[in-house]
Amino acid sequence: MQNKKYNPRVNRVLYGGDYNPEQWPEEVWQEDMRLLKEAHINELTLNVFSWATLQPSEEEYDFHKLDAVMELVREHGFSVMLATSTAAHPAWMAHRHPDILRTEFDGKRRKFGGRHNSCPNSPTYRLYAPRLARKLAERYQNYDNIVAWHISNEYGGCCYCEHCEAAFRQWLQKKYHTLGALNDAWNTAFWGHTFYDWEEIVLPDLRSEYFAPGRTQFQGMSVDYRRFNSDSILQNYIDEYQQIKEVTPDIPITTNLMGLYYDLDYKKWAKYMDFVSWDNYPSVGMPPAEIAMSHDVMRGLKGGQSFVLMEQTPSVTNWQPYNALKRPGVLALWSYQAMAHGADAIQYFQMRRTKGACEALHGAVIDHVGRPNTRVFREVTELGAQLENLSGDSLGATSDAKIAIYFDWSNWWSIDASAGPSDDLNYIDEIKSYYDALFKKHYAIDFVGPEDALDGYQILIAPILFSSSEEYAAKVRSFVEAGGTFVTTYFSGMVDEKNCYVLGGYPGHYKDILGIWVEESDALPTGEQNTFSYGNKTYPALRICDLIHSIRDLGDDYQDVTSAEAIGHYTTDFYAGTPCITKNTFGQGKAYYIGTRSEDAFYEQLLEQICKEAQVAPILDCDAELEITRRKNEHGEFLFLLNHTMEEQSVTLPGGPRVNILPRTTRIFHNGKSIL
Amino acid sequence: MQNKKYNPRVNRVLYGGDYNPEQWPEEVWQEDMRLLKEAHINELTLNVFSWATLQPSEEEYDFHKLDAVMELVREHGFSVMLATSTAAHPAWMAHRHPDILRTEFDGKRRKFGGRHNSCPNSPTYRLYAPRLARKLAERYQNYDNIVAWHISNEYGGCCYCEHCEAAFRQWLQKKYHTLGALNDAWNTAFWGHTFYDWEEIVLPDLRSEYFAPGRTQFQGMSVDYRRFNSDSILQNYIDEYQQIKEVTPDIPITTNLMGLYYDLDYKKWAKYMDFVSWDNYPSVGMPPAEIAMSHDVMRGLKGGQSFVLMEQTPSVTNWQPYNALKRPGVLALWSYQAMAHGADAIQYFQMRRTKGACEALHGAVIDHVGRPNTRVFREVTELGAQLENLSGDSLGATSDAKIAIYFDWSNWWSIDASAGPSDDLNYIDEIKSYYDALFKKHYAIDFVGPEDALDGYQILIAPILFSSSEEYAAKVRSFVEAGGTFVTTYFSGMVDEKNCYVLGGYPGHYKDILGIWVEESDALPTGEQNTFSYGNKTYPALRICDLIHSIRDLGDDYQDVTSAEAIGHYTTDFYAGTPCITKNTFGQGKAYYIGTRSEDAFYEQLLEQICKEAQVAPILDCDAELEITRRKNEHGEFLFLLNHTMEEQSVTLPGGPRVNILPRTTRIFHNGKSIL
Amino acid sequence: MQNKKYNPRVNRVLYGGDYNPEQWPEEVWQEDMRLLKEAHINELTLNVFSWATLQPSEEEYDFHKLDAVMELVREHGFSVMLATSTAAHPAWMAHRHPDILRTEFDGKRRKFGGRHNSCPNSPTYRLYAPRLARKLAERYQNYDNIVAWHISNEYGGCCYCEHCEAAFRQWLQKKYHTLGALNDAWNTAFWGHTFYDWEEIVLPDLRSEYFAPGRTQFQGMSVDYRRFNSDSILQNYIDEYQQIKEVTPDIPITTNLMGLYYDLDYKKWAKYMDFVSWDNYPSVGMPPAEIAMSHDVMRGLKGGQSFVLMEQTPSVTNWQPYNALKRPGVLALWSYQAMAHGADAIQYFQMRRTKGACEALHGAVIDHVGRPNTRVFREVTELGAQLENLSGDSLGATSDAKIAIYFDWSNWWSIDASAGPSDDLNYIDEIKSYYDALFKKHYAIDFVGPEDALDGYQILIAPILFSSSEEYAAKVRSFVEAGGTFVTTYFSGMVDEKNCYVLGGYPGHYKDILGIWVEESDALPTGEQNTFSYGNKTYPALRICDLIHSIRDLGDDYQDVTSAEAIGHYTTDFYAGTPCITKNTFGQGKAYYIGTRSEDAFYEQLLEQICKEAQVAPILDCDAELEITRRKNEHGEFLFLLNHTMEEQSVTLPGGPRVNILPRTTRIFHNGKSIL
Repeated sequence: MQNKKYNPRVNRVLYGGDYNPEQWPEEVWQEDMRLLKEAHINELTLNVFSWATLQPSEEEYDFHKLDAVMELVREHGFSVMLATSTAAHPAWMAHRHPDILRTEFDGKRRKFGGRHNSCPNSPTYRLYAPRLARKLAERYQNYDNIVAWHISNEYGGCCYCEHCEAAFRQWLQKKYHTLGALNDAWNTAFWGHTFYDWEEIVLPDLRSEYFAPGRTQFQGMSVDYRRFNSDSILQNYIDEYQQIKEVTPDIPITTNLMGLYYDLDYKKWAKYMDFVSWDNYPSVGMPPAEIAMSHDVMRGLKGGQSFVLMEQTPSVTNWQPYNALKRPGVLALWSYQAMAHGADAIQYFQMRRTKGACEALHGAVIDHVGRPNTRVFREVTELGAQLENLSGDSLGATSDAKIAIYFDWSNWWSIDASAGPSDDLNYIDEIKSYYDALFKKHYAIDFVGPEDALDGYQILIAPILFSSSEEYAAKVRSFVEAGGTFVTTYFSGMVDEKNCYVLGGYPGHYKDILGIWVEESDALPTGEQNTFSYGNKTYPALRICDLIHSIRDLGDDYQDVTSAEAIGHYTTDFYAGTPCITKNTFGQGKAYYIGTRSEDAFYEQLLEQICKEAQVAPILDCDAELEITRRKNEHGEFLFLLNHTMEEQSVTLPGGPRVNILPRTTRIFHNGKSIL
Repeated sequence: MQNKKYNPRVNRVLYGGDYNPEQWPEEVWQEDMRLLKEAHINELTLNVFSWATLQPSEEEYDFHKLDAVMELVREHGFSVMLATSTAAHPAWMAHRHPDILRTEFDGKRRKFGGRHNSCPNSPTYRLYAPRLARKLAERYQNYDNIVAWHISNEYGGCCYCEHCEAAFRQWLQKKYHTLGALNDAWNTAFWGHTFYDWEEIVLPDLRSEYFAPGRTQFQGMSVDYRRFNSDSILQNYIDEYQQIKEVTPDIPITTNLMGLYYDLDYKKWAKYMDFVSWDNYPSVGMPPAEIAMSHDVMRGLKGGQSFVLMEQTPSVTNWQPYNALKRPGVLALWSYQAMAHGADAIQYFQMRRTKGACEALHGAVIDHVGRPNTRVFREVTELGAQLENLSGDSLGATSDAKIAIYFDWSNWWSIDASAGPSDDLNYIDEIKSYYDALFKKHYAIDFVGPEDALDGYQILIAPILFSSSEEYAAKVRSFVEAGGTFVTTYFSGMVDEKNCYVLGGYPGHYKDILGIWVEESDALPTGEQNTFSYGNKTYPALRICDLIHSIRDLGDDYQDVTSAEAIGHYTTDFYAGTPCITKNTFGQGKAYYIGTRSEDAFYEQLLEQICKEAQVAPILDCDAELEITRRKNEHGEFLFLLNHTMEEQSVTLPGGPRVNILPRTTRIFHNGKSIL
Repeated sequence: MQNKKYNPRVNRVLYGGDYNPEQWPEEVWQEDMRLLKEAHINELTLNVFSWATLQPSEEEYDFHKLDAVMELVREHGFSVMLATSTAAHPAWMAHRHPDILRTEFDGKRRKFGGRHNSCPNSPTYRLYAPRLARKLAERYQNYDNIVAWHISNEYGGCCYCEHCEAAFRQWLQKKYHTLGALNDAWNTAFWGHTFYDWEEIVLPDLRSEYFAPGRTQFQGMSVDYRRFNSDSILQNYIDEYQQIKEVTPDIPITTNLMGLYYDLDYKKWAKYMDFVSWDNYPSVGMPPAEIAMSHDVMRGLKGGQSFVLMEQTPSVTNWQPYNALKRPGVLALWSYQAMAHGADAIQYFQMRRTKGACEALHGAVIDHVGRPNTRVFREVTELGAQLENLSGDSLGATSDAKIAIYFDWSNWWSIDASAGPSDDLNYIDEIKSYYDALFKKHYAIDFVGPEDALDGYQILIAPILFSSSEEYAAKVRSFVEAGGTFVTTYFSGMVDEKNCYVLGGYPGHYKDILGIWVEESDALPTGEQNTFSYGNKTYPALRICDLIHSIRDLGDDYQDVTSAEAIGHYTTDFYAGTPCITKNTFGQGKAYYIGTRSEDAFYEQLLEQICKEAQVAPILDCDAELEITRRKNEHGEFLFLLNHTMEEQSVTLPGGPRVNILPRTTRIFHNGKSIL
């Protein structure tokens, strides 16, 4: 078993998070040290938002306050993740160099304010951000308590300014080489949008090709813009990465991601990150499976390598419509949930609650009251003590899932940009339905992207595989021929990576694998439904109903191809009796097509059947309402049992013992032995 | 019976639509020809979106691809409607001449993108669009298979740029001559908005007099802007019309309208169109009566002349929130519905589904699969064969309705701009209620505008006649005096054509005709209602409740005027017992006032009573749930029976025979003889 | 008893309102005079929107029309409130001096249009508006029928232009003196927003620190902007005030306010107004208590001085979504309600309905019909006759309430700007709940602001006292120590006047008074609730649930402080059994903390208990569904009984007599004697 440890410099579970002493008078610092030690904090993330302090003007740098902080925390034995502070440019910079300000989707030019809003193609930003990163690397390179660099913070958003427009044209030239290739890719002959000069191309925003968020007129252009924007911001990250790496080649570098975040293709980003870290802020009422899925997606970014939970709130958030308290026990439960899915460090935003501005009501280890006798501080301390008691054996342990779910940002953007057939098309919803059914039955799941190998997986699930390359279809074809099971759904195989429709019958390059031809797709308004029969039951058919034929109905060319078997049929409307769910035997494997959207019970029945047939077993085969995961490394197996419910759950472990898991608690077993 | 044929060059039912071979490689063209012939297509609308191809730069024109297409379709015997391609300007033009780009309602300046968005007062557009039209006319004038010119495409929208602002001032000078007249018309003394110089006038957009869509502060200005904008775009049409007409005086010219489209006063446009054509895209779930009404409105634009159904989708649309499939049979049913209301040509958007961009999911005769063995292709082919079997006898046949519904764009705009009394005021809703009741009972209905003569009609219905000229009141007065029946509603007779309130008692110039005085109007929020009694039943009173007096309550001047009889009374609130529905005998005729909005059953009871009294009979007096229309010309009478339901319907025809109409089918009888 | 008469020049109840003869031809004027006399109108508010007429160009002034109007109304014996016309700048001024146009929240620069939209920091506006005011004062100073000056009209709104930005920086410099003080107050160290130069500060709008209306990133900045904007517009008022006062020192000056209007800190404004006047336009369905509360807030602005009801509609409004008619009797009822709460003048907008533009459908004394035989005219006349019969004895009579509710605009803005904990936080809702409970039980209520003395009050209620100064806490502390009863709620005592959180435990400086420590606050989404027990009943706990401790739980420093008694406890969730409602004995007084929001029945039970304990009696102790108020002056006591219901109510007066109050009517008793 390969160890997939995120960081060779770390041999314990780091426990800490964002600490901003520069926002407080120094007399508070000693009290901080005392309280954080009391809470078993061992790591501090520093310098996240200090650019204005570090660089008070064009040519002036002032590190004296950061020097003092670095000394302070080293003296007190804390590990450090040192941030570069480039997530919020200084006010003077915006004033003197307005090119650093973004332009919004509607063309509104921003003024100074907020954060995470430097134009990625701003010459000023690209000059000063990497310069600061280098200065920090040079100044603090000898602090051996630095365990990682943390570049910027929660990168994201889009910009539609003239600098981005010029950069977009260059990006397109690099990609397409000729205008002819670009005109063809975007099908600009439609509506006579042919470009004769690169300068004629404008960004697709509300002033041009978009007509509303989530609706656009030239999908190829819009998805290319999404790719370009993600690449542009990634370049900001790389700019800093390169500067730091030259100075401190041995210290790993990361930036904190945000789970299923739309704007950035994290799968591409992860290539340039030494390890993945991310910020877990579930919205109020989010079900455990959804949080689990985000963890699995994040773990999948670097092929299963363990990751850092960079931020979570010790209690409330401040930015949701209703910021409920984390209930007692949830802090630990969700921390262990992160570990259960591959996290090797547990960190908070933030150590001390700020006294003013928009995060003053965000939870912190030390509240405005400034004392340790709070519920939150006690829970933080209790968890810290538990983590301290865990050995470092579990570090780098990872999943051995046999089921992979395909997830691809370009596909997400393509689905979103599609004009038709239904406003309710939702990539994430569809993935969740498949994930939830497997989660409930305790199956291990990995997430893979277009470039990931499929070796070792027995089942590949690709909901709404709307956009993909012919190469990816070939990869799936090989996978199934070799015995794999492939599951996909309605609105799949429709367009290539340029958003051009694959001619000759849907689902395009997948139709031989699936043995079907989808002639038409009916869109049902919210609240309306068809129904279908499957396995002696009737289920609702929602959103889209594909009208499916045997592939042989396509004519002579397809008479030698295997044709799918219909294992579910519509039961109402003019297509009653026609196939809704099909199964094809292709080579040594199977390929399923789910022609509609349905309810949870269907996905559970379907996937249980498919797993059984593919001989994929759950981690534990039990009915307890538990989240169950397993991580493995050279030290063996770590089994996590998490009870998110308010009732006690019990389960019999493989070795025989029956264990009880109290409400809102976690149990961990290392090679069968309870370690929590 | 006068024949009202739309086009002297055409002697068959044209069957075809938009064909864009320039978006495809030439190897596809021959396959297209084969498949379209197979589908009985006989007409192709060409060159709708090819400006960028035809004019690749400032002084360069390139017709070689269009030449090839024109040759191809002539060789294959297709009639052609040749478009001018000016609905989407080229990218290079927007880049070099930004005056062609529109400015939106909120002041946002557009960039290149989309279509139908050239500024109507752009010097560049006004130079290049007619120049291209002329070149096309000169080049293809000798193609005798051209049956019509199709200028631009689906004109619409508004612009608020500085060119339009300057043009608005000129338009106002031409209309009002003096600032004094303008200040008086707009009542600028209110809020001290007096203008002392034409240059002080700005467009009424979100930056100035509007405070939200559908709400404005100076109604006179806002309605004038609407008229100006419609006129500006009409001028673009006329610019091209004149160029073409000089070259090919014998070929009729049209542009495709869009039914009840708000932005353009089609009644004024129709004066400049040789025939009406329009695009019928019912939204999902739209009832048959609503589609029928649009057809009748379109037929009314040119006094009953037959028209062209320029576009409909063979299957799905792509731009609705939920794009459901057209159910089997609906394609033919809705095509015959168009004929039933006056269409003499049935056309589709489009022949071949585009491979990319925002209409790639819009239905087409030839789908992405590229084969004829689809449900849609089969239905298209079956209908094509049926139409081929119909003789040309029905061409030019028109309605002989005795009932006219008044419809006026300026009135629509005025109602919409009104600040008070209720957000729910809705001109179209109100018209629909009257139309639906008549439709259900199989009455023939025409739509008339302010300039149309009322000769030949027995009943004139003018729902929410809020704004009209004193001249129109005089026309109505003559109509009623001569024996006509006039029906109008709450919120009528309030303002003149300048949006100034008529003083001396509502409903203004109509009060003598109606014999009433409306003292006050109560506005009921959505969900609240009063009730009224009428003909032994009680109905809900919704939205507005007018408090109605005898006209004699206005005092001495009105003692000699006939006073209306109350035939319905409110039953609750402080105005319980006061009149809600009144009927006046005026001259030889009758005048009804409906002081509130109610439910379908009321309109049916009321209109049946009014028709009976006015001795207007339905086309067929039966209870079958059928749409029934009749067209007449020199060849006699064509009776259309359309069954939109899922149940078989039957009806006894005048001559005696009982006929059955299967679900979603049409029967046509020519002089009593079944021809479909 | 001190007389608090608003105007020494007036010895009768003025009855009149806005009159705009300049919008009508002179032949109408004589008819106006006749009708207004008939209606017992005795006052006219003139010249509200005539700037364009008075100043047709840069240097030209033309008063001849206003001269004629002034003569006319003097001849006919009307009192006059003379307006300065500066609420709508002329079109030519906007054209020549665009600095007068505002920039909106989203950065959209306005063009000419609408009203109430001159930039308050526009050099042009600040030059021409006071100049016009002075010219009017000089020209009409000798009209002894002028009873007041009416500056501008319904001031309000915000501007985000570059002039305001520059002025904001100056305002900040004057307030903070140093950038260090400003950076500290706004806590700009958070997110590294430190300012090094005043020029770096930009206005907090949608382009900068706001991210949506009601949400902002630096609360200190946002609230300072609100204060600045209110001050800027106030300065416009003061500019005119000073010019007029120099010329006519003896004529009182006012401007018409708008009740609970968000944008302007009326409490500060009132210092600069000789008397308060306001416009009462309840929305459809607004309950009587809400209207009453607005009157009480308005009366409180100048410490109980009587005020002028400057505008109300005689019938409908035109700007609401649904503009229902005022039901018969409501006109008089609401007029008397104003008097009952301190109004000494009853006025309308407007005398004659305008013939066009957006208020043409707004109610008026004389309708478009132009005749007196309307319901509205009759009701106006009847009320006029009644008012004429009242002596002037009641003028200046005021409240003798023992209960004060605290209301502060800065606190409102702070609550609104807060990022967290709940979107449903609503200052006005919370105040209403306490007001309504007291209103229902017939208690007299005053509203006080931060600078008002608390002498004479026995109970002070301060719902959601989120933001306040340490000085105010000291004032409350003295009040309670001396025997007062203080009531406050959840989300109180959190921030100081700079929006910086008070450290050391919530509710900040109030925790010793209240004897509690609030550790956490749970936010409940709309539709969810906790519950709590109080006085043998269980009530819903909504929106926010504070988790409350004894203050002694804060540690050693607080062991000598009295600790509150829990008189209500949560009954569900993990904080079941913990305090929800607390009561502390502090000095001679009591302090209550209400840790959540609940339903009406709770507030009634709670406040009845608190009043009983504080020995505060209602005006009349009865269960009749009546509004009951009392005003006192040197002439004794005026008791108002208003029946807003549709049922007759009866009540026994202190002296013994039982009186009946018919539906929608008012009775007034002067020293026990019925005068209405």
